Amino acid sequence: MIFASDNWSGAHPAVNAALARHSEGMASAYGSSDLDKAVEKRFDEIFEREVAVFFVGTGTAANSLALASVNRPGGVVLCHREAHIVEDECGAPEFFTHGARMAPVDGPNGLIDAANLKREIARFKPDFVHAGQPMAVSISQPGEAGTLYTADEIETIATIAHDRGLTLHMDGARFANGLMASGLSPAEMTWKRGVDILSFGATKNGCWCAEAIVVFDPDKASQFPYIRKRGAQLFSKTRFVAAQFMAYFEGGLWLDMAGHSNRMANRLREALAASNSAREAWPTHSNEVFAILPRDLDTRLRAEGAVFYEWNPPHSMPDLTSEDETLVRLVTSWSTEEADVERFASFLR
Amino acid sequence: MIFASDNWSGAHPAVNAALARHSEGMASAYGSSDLDKAVEKRFDEIFEREVAVFFVGTGTAANSLALASVNRPGGVVLCHREAHIVEDECGAPEFFTHGARMAPVDGPNGLIDAANLKREIARFKPDFVHAGQPMAVSISQPGEAGTLYTADEIETIATIAHDRGLTLHMDGARFANGLMASGLSPAEMTWKRGVDILSFGATKNGCWCAEAIVVFDPDKASQFPYIRKRGAQLFSKTRFVAAQFMAYFEGGLWLDMAGHSNRMANRLREALAASNSAREAWPTHSNEVFAILPRDLDTRLRAEGAVFYEWNPPHSMPDLTSEDETLVRLVTSWSTEEADVERFASFLR
Amino acid sequence: MIFASDNWSGAHPAVNAALARHSEGMASAYGSSDLDKAVEKRFDEIFEREVAVFFVGTGTAANSLALASVNRPGGVVLCHREAHIVEDECGAPEFFTHGARMAPVDGPNGLIDAANLKREIARFKPDFVHAGQPMAVSISQPGEAGTLYTADEIETIATIAHDRGLTLHMDGARFANGLMASGLSPAEMTWKRGVDILSFGATKNGCWCAEAIVVFDPDKASQFPYIRKRGAQLFSKTRFVAAQFMAYFEGGLWLDMAGHSNRMANRLREALAASNSAREAWPTHSNEVFAILPRDLDTRLRAEGAVFYEWNPPHSMPDLTSEDETLVRLVTSWSTEEADVERFASFLR
Amino acid sequence: MIFASDNWSGAHPAVNAALARHSEGMASAYGSSDLDKAVEKRFDEIFEREVAVFFVGTGTAANSLALASVNRPGGVVLCHREAHIVEDECGAPEFFTHGARMAPVDGPNGLIDAANLKREIARFKPDFVHAGQPMAVSISQPGEAGTLYTADEIETIATIAHDRGLTLHMDGARFANGLMASGLSPAEMTWKRGVDILSFGATKNGCWCAEAIVVFDPDKASQFPYIRKRGAQLFSKTRFVAAQFMAYFEGGLWLDMAGHSNRMANRLREALAASNSAREAWPTHSNEVFAILPRDLDTRLRAEGAVFYEWNPPHSMPDLTSEDETLVRLVTSWSTEEADVERFASFLR
Repeated sequence: MIFASDNWSGAHPAVNAALARHSEGMASAYGSSDLDKAVEKRFDEIFEREVAVFFVGTGTAANSLALASVNRPGGVVLCHREAHIVEDECGAPEFFTHGARMAPVDGPNGLIDAANLKREIARFKPDFVHAGQPMAVSISQPGEAGTLYTADEIETIATIAHDRGLTLHMDGARFANGLMASGLSPAEMTWKRGVDILSFGATKNGCWCAEAIVVFDPDKASQFPYIRKRGAQLFSKTRFVAAQFMAYFEGGLWLDMAGHSNRMANRLREALAASNSAREAWPTHSNEVFAILPRDLDTRLRAEGAVFYEWNPPHSMPDLTSEDETLVRLVTSWSTEEADVERFASFLR
Repeated sequence: MIFASDNWSGAHPAVNAALARHSEGMASAYGSSDLDKAVEKRFDEIFEREVAVFFVGTGTAANSLALASVNRPGGVVLCHREAHIVEDECGAPEFFTHGARMAPVDGPNGLIDAANLKREIARFKPDFVHAGQPMAVSISQPGEAGTLYTADEIETIATIAHDRGLTLHMDGARFANGLMASGLSPAEMTWKRGVDILSFGATKNGCWCAEAIVVFDPDKASQFPYIRKRGAQLFSKTRFVAAQFMAYFEGGLWLDMAGHSNRMANRLREALAASNSAREAWPTHSNEVFAILPRDLDTRLRAEGAVFYEWNPPHSMPDLTSEDETLVRLVTSWSTEEADVERFASFLR
Repeated sequence: MIFASDNWSGAHPAVNAALARHSEGMASAYGSSDLDKAVEKRFDEIFEREVAVFFVGTGTAANSLALASVNRPGGVVLCHREAHIVEDECGAPEFFTHGARMAPVDGPNGLIDAANLKREIARFKPDFVHAGQPMAVSISQPGEAGTLYTADEIETIATIAHDRGLTLHMDGARFANGLMASGLSPAEMTWKRGVDILSFGATKNGCWCAEAIVVFDPDKASQFPYIRKRGAQLFSKTRFVAAQFMAYFEGGLWLDMAGHSNRMANRLREALAASNSAREAWPTHSNEVFAILPRDLDTRLRAEGAVFYEWNPPHSMPDLTSEDETLVRLVTSWSTEEADVERFASFLR
Repeated sequence: MIFASDNWSGAHPAVNAALARHSEGMASAYGSSDLDKAVEKRFDEIFEREVAVFFVGTGTAANSLALASVNRPGGVVLCHREAHIVEDECGAPEFFTHGARMAPVDGPNGLIDAANLKREIARFKPDFVHAGQPMAVSISQPGEAGTLYTADEIETIATIAHDRGLTLHMDGARFANGLMASGLSPAEMTWKRGVDILSFGATKNGCWCAEAIVVFDPDKASQFPYIRKRGAQLFSKTRFVAAQFMAYFEGGLWLDMAGHSNRMANRLREALAASNSAREAWPTHSNEVFAILPRDLDTRLRAEGAVFYEWNPPHSMPDLTSEDETLVRLVTSWSTEEADVERFASFLR
């Protein structure tokens, strides 16, 4: 009953097999091998257009370098107040951008509210140096609260961003989960609706360490190789990332794994809905479920071996729980076992 | 006949097997799993003392974060003029330290000359803010030129550094090759002779992606977890690094691989010594051989399928080659085949 | 009728006279002249203890370098959401700290609410690297909204900060105005109540360019000379700052100027209170007055030659004004003429 | 007999008078006053073209922000090994550029040798990310060694830089001294020969604190206002810089002061040439003279009240002095008195 995080899972056997298969012989390093090229080609196919792809080692690196690549002096990134780039990356985005500010935008359920976004951007008067200058909007799909933007919502946000000359970045640490939950195609969930640059995560969904930055307009990526190398994210044996991606995409494995993960989460949601003591904190759409548990149930679950994290209540919901309740996060993954879910569910009844 | 770089090799089968073995089940993320702890313990044993160990993804990250952790405002790192941190990391050390300067110290064969080091440090008068302040000395063992410091030379440099309150950092991207070539123990090659912090590389020697920063005085590492996370180098599934290290150390695999690699290089050296057209550019000691080739031999070797890099002549040897010669680097690895070496050697005759 | 900002004033004649007087002869540069030392001594007297003083050129530099000097990796500064360091310094604090985050804390009237501060700090769990680590609390006295903390409020905030090992920084860009409005002594408004480091501004109050960072525990300032020089804030002819400060303190000129400025602001407040069309937006205490004006009055005032800035409504008060109203800021200075104030007041009636 | 540095002088009376004159009344802040505009216009006239001008507070700021404005990821600045930006700015250029490297180029007498420059640039292969990418060449006119480039030498260097797409920056901390010594016009010494961006210093030559960055192609300066503000170099009362420049240019005062300063230095050179114990270390051209003094003469001069700095021997001249000699720097300024020079000269005989 381990629902701590999807990064508590290991790698899918197919990923390990690919690593073993591709470990033989010599291959040119630093991203120039045939395998690297083949994977880049797969990205083109998946996104139905030519894209520029850069492998990196962590989701934090993907987000931070993506934002660094579009920063301006005094730059400001508009993002949700509870975004991963604000709450969970130890200031890496600020560090890699040399001090861009992550300016909080509020909105329910971890999603940026378009009207708020518009108002926050409008606070920055053109050529008023004192306030700095907005340079990007960053959204997470799905976000830290496990929720999803619709394609139309993405487009609305993109339009607001582009009207002011801002880049739209998407943190897709759980991109496959977002795809499966929304039913959108990769293209439709991104560039067709205005996303300019994507952090494409595979680590949480069955790889060891496979993250990529996807720049939809390759012409805008000319400085990226230097940004990545300077950021200590250019692996020498890049084929080890490429091999993971190869297995990940092969036969739709990535979507199968995300589908399983989402189904397991949905089963937890159903159990919460049927519970008369616990309840869902807010509607979630992918493989994260946020639950309010009575403290005694929390204690009992942990005694039975369940592992999950207590969660900081979002800024917008300071009174979410009473004294004898607690807010927790339950995350499922490609390797979550159905029996575990059912056992957990049985305690919620 | 591929002697381009040791990072053109893949991973040893034992490393892949360890990855497969450890990919099952759930394990706590971000460095807190049992496997992570077990590997940390192995480092203590290898270095015969308690050390603080931090896994990172690239050698550039290891060097850059190591230096960042000991930096001071206006900090200066004394290092060889041809050091990897100067020539090959795209300014990452400067970037992660927020602008520390890599101040060049000259010395023959890629090694810092102690007298030069002393003189360069003396240029910095205490409390003279204009010049900045030295904060570390960094040496590579073996260095970019494939050469080694003796234990006594390390100690001499350490004493010069410590007399001025500077940290001594060692770039050990090819640490195992250095061990095997020098016959020193890990402890003797480092902290027993005054090294304070080590970049411990395993990627070039049979792993996929396994680098570690070893801080010999764990009390000095209290801020390092934040430095690493902010630097986007904290992997979520750290067991994938830990598993590689586990296999790497198991039964002395790491030393066996480095020994093979060094022997193959030595064979190339012998062939150069016996050649009447090519010659060694300077004495090298581990798994890199620098050769001066007649251009027509260079052409012929490449036509026969040999792969190796032309090399920038060191600053100290601008007239190393004549018009019809070229300086090249030949690197061997754990997977270099003896037959390839012999075939290459046959062309040198 | 110019109430745009107190930095629209020039310098007091006594300041110019001091510059002329001290411009003769040679004096040692970079802060080591007798005059520099004499001014440092004056700071000791004013604050009733030995302090470390560092002159810089702008208030932005003072705040940014002060925070840089106490930063930690992944550092977070807790400050009011509308603080000058957030809204008006183009990301300089983030830049000079290499990416520290300015984390917003809410509170009425531009002042941090102690309970909110406590809750925000508590969100950072010790040793949880993902969130970064708080490193300082920064308050402004008076703040951007023209309001003041009481000595007890400062002490309460200091206690919360110190309990977590955080530095308390005070942005005193209008320090003299704060002193005169509060009736506190310099020591009582700062270190006696727990302030650790102060940005001491004189530019807005009758100097040309005279700002100082005051570190109350000189032992903690050992790296500051390097931080300042690296930050390009070490003037060569520092006596030009010292001479300004000398004149500024001479005979209590600084307090006289601030007193005048505060009185002029108070006169504007009285006029607003008596007005039947305009009103004070929130209570202000020093030399800034925030007013809600009917748009037609705003237009008329500007037509009569009045100069003042429209103001972004604070985040906490989005509905401060109706469609036909506007929020404006009126600032007085040492050189504001009483006749101008009276004329402006006459239009408010 | 104070020849320590030209920044030991105060400000010219005309500069103080201008400050007093312009301190009255209100003027819009942050560079937008009429006076600011008038001075910007003066710069256009002086350089015979439209330029973009940005006032800053220190020469270090001018150099650092100039380089920051043209930096690229992994950027490298080619400069003389003894350049002020390397030796005397505490790493500020690295800091403000977020870690650009100042790559040393050798050349006699503190001047870059064009052939060396070409070779160093050629070490950077296009698209080879490991080495970083050159982004600018920086020269000083006059340089730290007091020497001057001819207009043709500047053009040669500019051509080498531009052929590789690099910006040519000139550190003109003593720009007026360079003009007077070379006989060139401001335009001829800069953009007409290929200089792209200039640090224009006036502080050392009779101002208190007046430095400017001049961008010869104003179209390339669009981000500069943000770079300056973020760098904490946007003064609020910018008219205090503008007033200094106004007086500085008025009636050619700047050239008169520099002419005096150069003449005083030349008198020292003549005395050295006539001396049978002391000698010039290398030929210098403006207001700095480097002398090799017998240690007993050094002692005697200091006993007589002479003040001057011992100098680090340049890297290229380690054996400049014998045991009983010392290398010193003598600097003259606008306020150096002829009698002092003559008295000093009398000791050299």
